[in-house]
Amino acid sequence: MKAIRDPIHNIILFDKQNERLILDLLDTPEFQRLRHIKQLGFSSYTYPGAEHTRFAHSLGVAHLTRRFIDKISSNKVTGDGLSVEELTDNRLLVSVAALLHDIGHGPFSHALEGITGIKHEKWTIKIIKGNTCVNKIIRHYNISPDEVAEIIQRTHKSSALVKILSSQLDADRTDYLLRDSVMTGAGYGSFDLEWLINVLRLGKHEDEVEIGLDLNKGQSIAEDYVMARYYMYKNVYFHKTTRSAELMMSSVFKRAKELESQGLIEFPAVLKKIINVQEENSDDDILQAYLELNEHLLWTCVMKWKDCDDLVLKDLCGRILNRNLYKALPQGIDIFKIIRAGDKLSAQLKIPVEYLLLVDSAESGCYKDPYILIKPSQEDPKEREASEQIFLFDNDGRAEELSRISKVIGAMRDESINIKRYYVPGEYIENFLGE
Amino acid sequence: MKAIRDPIHNIILFDKQNERLILDLLDTPEFQRLRHIKQLGFSSYTYPGAEHTRFAHSLGVAHLTRRFIDKISSNKVTGDGLSVEELTDNRLLVSVAALLHDIGHGPFSHALEGITGIKHEKWTIKIIKGNTCVNKIIRHYNISPDEVAEIIQRTHKSSALVKILSSQLDADRTDYLLRDSVMTGAGYGSFDLEWLINVLRLGKHEDEVEIGLDLNKGQSIAEDYVMARYYMYKNVYFHKTTRSAELMMSSVFKRAKELESQGLIEFPAVLKKIINVQEENSDDDILQAYLELNEHLLWTCVMKWKDCDDLVLKDLCGRILNRNLYKALPQGIDIFKIIRAGDKLSAQLKIPVEYLLLVDSAESGCYKDPYILIKPSQEDPKEREASEQIFLFDNDGRAEELSRISKVIGAMRDESINIKRYYVPGEYIENFLGE
Amino acid sequence: MKAIRDPIHNIILFDKQNERLILDLLDTPEFQRLRHIKQLGFSSYTYPGAEHTRFAHSLGVAHLTRRFIDKISSNKVTGDGLSVEELTDNRLLVSVAALLHDIGHGPFSHALEGITGIKHEKWTIKIIKGNTCVNKIIRHYNISPDEVAEIIQRTHKSSALVKILSSQLDADRTDYLLRDSVMTGAGYGSFDLEWLINVLRLGKHEDEVEIGLDLNKGQSIAEDYVMARYYMYKNVYFHKTTRSAELMMSSVFKRAKELESQGLIEFPAVLKKIINVQEENSDDDILQAYLELNEHLLWTCVMKWKDCDDLVLKDLCGRILNRNLYKALPQGIDIFKIIRAGDKLSAQLKIPVEYLLLVDSAESGCYKDPYILIKPSQEDPKEREASEQIFLFDNDGRAEELSRISKVIGAMRDESINIKRYYVPGEYIENFLGE
Amino acid sequence: MKAIRDPIHNIILFDKQNERLILDLLDTPEFQRLRHIKQLGFSSYTYPGAEHTRFAHSLGVAHLTRRFIDKISSNKVTGDGLSVEELTDNRLLVSVAALLHDIGHGPFSHALEGITGIKHEKWTIKIIKGNTCVNKIIRHYNISPDEVAEIIQRTHKSSALVKILSSQLDADRTDYLLRDSVMTGAGYGSFDLEWLINVLRLGKHEDEVEIGLDLNKGQSIAEDYVMARYYMYKNVYFHKTTRSAELMMSSVFKRAKELESQGLIEFPAVLKKIINVQEENSDDDILQAYLELNEHLLWTCVMKWKDCDDLVLKDLCGRILNRNLYKALPQGIDIFKIIRAGDKLSAQLKIPVEYLLLVDSAESGCYKDPYILIKPSQEDPKEREASEQIFLFDNDGRAEELSRISKVIGAMRDESINIKRYYVPGEYIENFLGE
Repeated sequence: MKAIRDPIHNIILFDKQNERLILDLLDTPEFQRLRHIKQLGFSSYTYPGAEHTRFAHSLGVAHLTRRFIDKISSNKVTGDGLSVEELTDNRLLVSVAALLHDIGHGPFSHALEGITGIKHEKWTIKIIKGNTCVNKIIRHYNISPDEVAEIIQRTHKSSALVKILSSQLDADRTDYLLRDSVMTGAGYGSFDLEWLINVLRLGKHEDEVEIGLDLNKGQSIAEDYVMARYYMYKNVYFHKTTRSAELMMSSVFKRAKELESQGLIEFPAVLKKIINVQEENSDDDILQAYLELNEHLLWTCVMKWKDCDDLVLKDLCGRILNRNLYKALPQGIDIFKIIRAGDKLSAQLKIPVEYLLLVDSAESGCYKDPYILIKPSQEDPKEREASEQIFLFDNDGRAEELSRISKVIGAMRDESINIKRYYVPGEYIENFLGE
Repeated sequence: MKAIRDPIHNIILFDKQNERLILDLLDTPEFQRLRHIKQLGFSSYTYPGAEHTRFAHSLGVAHLTRRFIDKISSNKVTGDGLSVEELTDNRLLVSVAALLHDIGHGPFSHALEGITGIKHEKWTIKIIKGNTCVNKIIRHYNISPDEVAEIIQRTHKSSALVKILSSQLDADRTDYLLRDSVMTGAGYGSFDLEWLINVLRLGKHEDEVEIGLDLNKGQSIAEDYVMARYYMYKNVYFHKTTRSAELMMSSVFKRAKELESQGLIEFPAVLKKIINVQEENSDDDILQAYLELNEHLLWTCVMKWKDCDDLVLKDLCGRILNRNLYKALPQGIDIFKIIRAGDKLSAQLKIPVEYLLLVDSAESGCYKDPYILIKPSQEDPKEREASEQIFLFDNDGRAEELSRISKVIGAMRDESINIKRYYVPGEYIENFLGE
Repeated sequence: MKAIRDPIHNIILFDKQNERLILDLLDTPEFQRLRHIKQLGFSSYTYPGAEHTRFAHSLGVAHLTRRFIDKISSNKVTGDGLSVEELTDNRLLVSVAALLHDIGHGPFSHALEGITGIKHEKWTIKIIKGNTCVNKIIRHYNISPDEVAEIIQRTHKSSALVKILSSQLDADRTDYLLRDSVMTGAGYGSFDLEWLINVLRLGKHEDEVEIGLDLNKGQSIAEDYVMARYYMYKNVYFHKTTRSAELMMSSVFKRAKELESQGLIEFPAVLKKIINVQEENSDDDILQAYLELNEHLLWTCVMKWKDCDDLVLKDLCGRILNRNLYKALPQGIDIFKIIRAGDKLSAQLKIPVEYLLLVDSAESGCYKDPYILIKPSQEDPKEREASEQIFLFDNDGRAEELSRISKVIGAMRDESINIKRYYVPGEYIENFLGE
Repeated sequence: MKAIRDPIHNIILFDKQNERLILDLLDTPEFQRLRHIKQLGFSSYTYPGAEHTRFAHSLGVAHLTRRFIDKISSNKVTGDGLSVEELTDNRLLVSVAALLHDIGHGPFSHALEGITGIKHEKWTIKIIKGNTCVNKIIRHYNISPDEVAEIIQRTHKSSALVKILSSQLDADRTDYLLRDSVMTGAGYGSFDLEWLINVLRLGKHEDEVEIGLDLNKGQSIAEDYVMARYYMYKNVYFHKTTRSAELMMSSVFKRAKELESQGLIEFPAVLKKIINVQEENSDDDILQAYLELNEHLLWTCVMKWKDCDDLVLKDLCGRILNRNLYKALPQGIDIFKIIRAGDKLSAQLKIPVEYLLLVDSAESGCYKDPYILIKPSQEDPKEREASEQIFLFDNDGRAEELSRISKVIGAMRDESINIKRYYVPGEYIENFLGE
């Protein structure tokens, strides 16, 4: 047994024989790269402990996936066409999908996606299917990379396998909620993981296999879990300070791209390749470039640009480095007033208003998880819907939806988090407040 | 009150009025830089959770310093010339020293010190006394930067102030032991911090004021604390895998310096400045360059060098990035045999033996802490000895030394950790084992 | 400092000088008696760890009361007529009230109250004001027992003092929720106590001083706290098995009283005194008898009665001792059917139906706490209402009520817990289910 | 699965099919009786949280036993004649032994044994082999009660089975150390249980199968565990205040027996039977009486005796109830002086000196566990020695003894805890101090 210590799950074990595939995947450059990509981006600017990486999170998800499968399959399942063997037979396959589900994440994901236009999910699939060590190793162990990708993309024919990793109660979000809660030190995200696992059940809803909880024992923990997620979004993921840094980083990349296209600054070669995808670059070439990207490279750019000639870029980079962040205007100021003040200041400072006044619209239905694309994408008609629902199964396998039996959760459905914020440099905040 | 959440101490509070100085120091570029320097360097290669930074640790030490002072001064102190007022009157001063005690740390401290020849302690003092924001702010609040430096250097005239931050039971190591224990997930380092704080006492030993514990209530926690430290050194700080990565990084810098001096590779400007200190560079200039150094810059070098022409540097950098580390030879192989095998392999591969065979001699008296220079340096005759001893004070203020009254700790004094290890590329390990 | 270790609060400190009164109260027979009365009665029949006593809980409430006062008074309070001095000046007085708030609790409180007709709150006041060690000590330290009683009864003129101990966010229920959660092992009741304390504020609502939370930082923890309480009621306090045992114990006492009044069994002298209060017994005499009551005495009765001649009492006692409890009928059976089956079985077994069919109607508004008499009693017009509301105060001291700004809590107001259950001996359950 | 919540192990699961035997044993009167016997006797007089019972502890030991077996048998065992099948084949048998290992414990075990002269181990065997529900159920499931008893008595032919429950690293003491540590709130007893379980191994030492730890990974946790036990003995189990209460309770029973034999007081029938075993009482009769004994009955005696005519008994009982305990004399007073002062006071007060001056000699080799009879008893030549040693096994199954490879533990072997204390009524302490 290979034992890995973890601040959340204590000991994560992998069988050196039966799970050698997993251990080999850990050693690939593609997976090691996740050490250099933080799980929560700029959250450490608000919560100094939140330095944990996608590497540790991915290990945690693989660990929980196996615990979920083992627990679910320890219960007798009654129900038409339901069988736990689908899970137990594919335990390794799903574990691999769990381990790799985030492998396409880049540094400062959202900011980066803003300038490349390519979602991290695309990269994940490319890495699994493309010319990579990860792909070679999966095939070496006679697992189909296509199947791994299908589980992650929710197009796999087995609904049970998909739902272990992508549903309201999946191994992914149970890991990140707990991990983010512990690492930030914000107690909100804590819930009783052991009890949740203990009451996990397999069931069916409208002919779809679903992961849910025992109806008799699971309602309170289900409510507690949904509430924990809600608190984490409201207080941690959408934290005012964190969002400011994220918006500023997006602005840095936007500005840098403008300047680069005008030949005023230079991008590192790999970044250049990703941003300006050209015909002559083969797909493999671009994938390779993407795999060279990590936070160190981008931070080094920021450090360099803080001394560049462009006043906008220079200022943004200096501020981000020193955590001298844009401040949010108080809620309730008239939008016309804000825009006019922005325009006026822009003219005065000769800085485009879009770099002076950053607009945030953090938005989430509380009961939904914005991290998953809920609707099947149009590109792939086979894509399974990532259900917004949490199911509780009675002893006869009948499903009840949580928000129907819980007034509290029913109420949450309608209370979406919808925060509109305007950020400006702290020294100009008066310009937006003054009558 | 400014509240900062922390995975170790939960809530760290700073008074917005009385401790405004601390809050202002947090916002300096010099302190923000610590966000980009990990507390445990390569330990995350062994313990994936151990990504915590010197930023978080420094906050923790400032927090504990105040708790220590508040607790110690809540007890009546009897004893000739002992007074808690020295502590309470200088609470802010010591807190500042605590916050800044690691501010001179660089990325990959030991590897970097190997090529610059300058200890991080030197940089700490330069940052506090030099032309920096930190210095300006300290002076603005009418605190003497010299006094801050003296506390950190253990030359301050008040022994009590020095010992809060540098002794066997100081705020520095209580924070890092617990923090490292939680973040690695290695339970070894845990001890009952609350009880330790509860029994803290001020006392005297041979005319020196010391921080110690209550003799009646403190022996078990003192033993537990010393044991926790011992386990952390043995299992975490001196971990075989972690040490391999550290040695390899030192080799990277050594090789790079050779190549740079021959004009074969180029260093980033700030690194160049630090390494080749020239007369024409003013001190401020060099300090400024040092402050630009962080892990991102060095990692970016490693990523670049992994594609360079020099086979040695290229290989080392590629391995470090992909965590394909040198392996330790089994204990007990004859040293002559190791050296001859190394020489033979070196000739064969045309690679200097010092890059093929890395030697580690992790060494520590268990009861001593190698992180502190024990002996006063000769340069500064005023420097106070960082005592190797832990004191227990009886109700009359009489000191007993822990190792004298505890057989267990007495035994530890003599059991030094002394691990000699030889690391070689995994694929050549057979060359060293073969008969 | 006197240090007491506690599984919930770790270290509870009392100042040997300034809080000598508290330490002296701990040593009274009246307070020591609480060691023999469990906090959760029969909950340990469901959760074997839940053996904690009212002694430990009372210590915890005294501890939290001081933390609450210290935290609240560390914040500047702005607001007409609001002052923290009222709290700081009366810190010891409120701590005493906190320590003694449950001192009148008897063994198996509700079952006992069923046959005596005297609420434990009455005994609490008698113990504080009567001829007891507690009373003597309070007076010895120049505290007014009447004031202590008034705080507990919510008739004290200072609303601030009252609310620290009796409101939706008081020291009493924060202690018992956490303590019960940890001791049962049911994770539901956990909430971030440190953050809750950190955001405690003093404010006003409709001219009444209230304890509440900071509006900007406290909404999530307030919601989490209300939810935690809801889960604990639903899953722990109203647990099916626990309630069965409690009902059976009530039946034991009811039957025993009947038999005793017919001279068929004998009561221990002190129990006899309490139950049949006679004119010739002076008040002091009865109080003294009550103070001799504890769980040991009642359990010894149960052990004795399990061998008595009366079939009903004998059976109930044997079952309780061996945890062979009555079983709850499934929900949804027609009430007419239940009653008819009960009558039939009663006739058949020649056992009164009230001992065969136990009816439970656990009921609680989720947002209310049934443990507190909400409405001022008619007897005492000065009695303060124990608010059902939780307040959040903005920086100008304006109060918002939680259920108005939180959809989730708003929804809870209407979702009362209302569980009607029918319990019968397990071997006769079929008689109630049969066609 | 039947899930039981526990403050130490969180969720304890028993399989409703395969472990129905265990669930049935839980429901026996003999096992339910353990709810009324505290694990730590009078420790709650020092640590108010320590109210946990032998019921909860026994559940914990059964739980850990299964975890130990499952973990040990997941590792390949190499070694002559070693096989994990012995463990896996007898998993249920050992679990039953684990569940029942303490079933013969009486209330205030040591005090009671003092007057009955019968060790609780005797009762345990009688309960398992005698005419009891426990015995019937074990046989009903085709398990041999004799084998269960043999495992507990260490006479079972399979050394592996014995050592899971009785050795230096057994399921019994790992449970009680952690449980006692958490419940008292004394952090000393904590160790990393998960890591300890993770490195458990089966091996051989001098032809005896032993439970030990992995040599490469287990030394630090082994040391930590031994130290934890040492701290618990020193600080908790041998706590000055707790020992005073225990000695006083022994004196109560001794005095009561004297008075009873003179017809001056009366014993409850069951106590009378146990103490004065008469020929005419069949064994079953006495066993039945013993099973009626619990703490409630004895406390009720104490409450009654506090009002009796004998001054000695009356005084002792009143003191115990009100926790007005005898105080320990300071260490270092001359023994002659103590005895003479005792005699003088005895003459003066007309109270036998043995009730005025209680002598405690808490004694334990630190590395040994006094709770286990180390030496095979002479009565049963088959009895296996409960090894004092902790073994570490290398990959070839070779055993190293912990104290030989660890200087710290080597040192502990010689540092026995040996505390001689003299307790006297607090008001007479001056009589023993005055020159």
